[in-house]
Amino acid sequence: MTQEEQLKTDERYMRMALVEAEAAGAAGEIPIGAVIVCQGRVIARAHNLTETLNDVTAHAEMQAITAAANELGGKYLTDCTLYVTVEPCPMCAGALGWSQIPRIVYGAADDKRGFHVYAPKALHPRTTISGGILEEECRQLMQDFFRSRR
Amino acid sequence: MTQEEQLKTDERYMRMALVEAEAAGAAGEIPIGAVIVCQGRVIARAHNLTETLNDVTAHAEMQAITAAANELGGKYLTDCTLYVTVEPCPMCAGALGWSQIPRIVYGAADDKRGFHVYAPKALHPRTTISGGILEEECRQLMQDFFRSRR
Repeated sequence: MTQEEQLKTDERYMRMALVEAEAAGAAGEIPIGAVIVCQGRVIARAHNLTETLNDVTAHAEMQAITAAANELGGKYLTDCTLYVTVEPCPMCAGALGWSQIPRIVYGAADDKRGFHVYAPKALHPRTTISGGILEEECRQLMQDFFRSRR
Repeated sequence: MTQEEQLKTDERYMRMALVEAEAAGAAGEIPIGAVIVCQGRVIARAHNLTETLNDVTAHAEMQAITAAANELGGKYLTDCTLYVTVEPCPMCAGALGWSQIPRIVYGAADDKRGFHVYAPKALHPRTTISGGILEEECRQLMQDFFRSRR
């Protein structure tokens, strides 16, 4: 795949993650969505459910990891890519580390809660990370949500 | 409570966590157990279920956080203490950070996967941590488990 093709593919899956994020926002959840793709097939779509489930562990990425493992029948996501609209937090980065997922793509950076600042070594050392895919849309969704709640 | 009374209390709850860890080991899981106590009442007991559930997120602490929030009817564990037989990993430390739990007590340190090395800032800044409670028993259980699998 050329770099341009890769970017197009990444944007396509990030749009799916954005649809999930919008569903979260519509349900009163912080609007973050995630999709896991395995060899060209979407095997999990999820969004933040912390309010609905009353559970701080119910982030989009955590739901997606559990759903993907369920779909694959195995707990390691060794042939998968995770797309998530916002940079993962330390909890999610730690979970992604355990899953041995080789690639993570995120939209907007999270300077306050992102793993880059708080848990830079939580991921598996061989995992590659691409940030900034559809960054503006991902960030805007978050900003609109928090503005509407003030 | 005097320091001595606190230590006795901590050891009593850590013994409960050890019972959970033993149950995990008997089920073929890495033997780690956790208990959450809220104002003198045990509100969650859990053990590692990653193999049984085929899910890397099913650590003892994660199960305990979810169960405790369920029991309390709210997602913040602001009056609770978590007891866990082994130092939490970055994922669990991140989840404990989100839960705003004010105190964490663990048994054996984990130099390879513990949050102290890999995610030292994942916890809430006001959370206090006590390590080394019933350390020998907690470590021995892990060593015996891994030795028996070689």
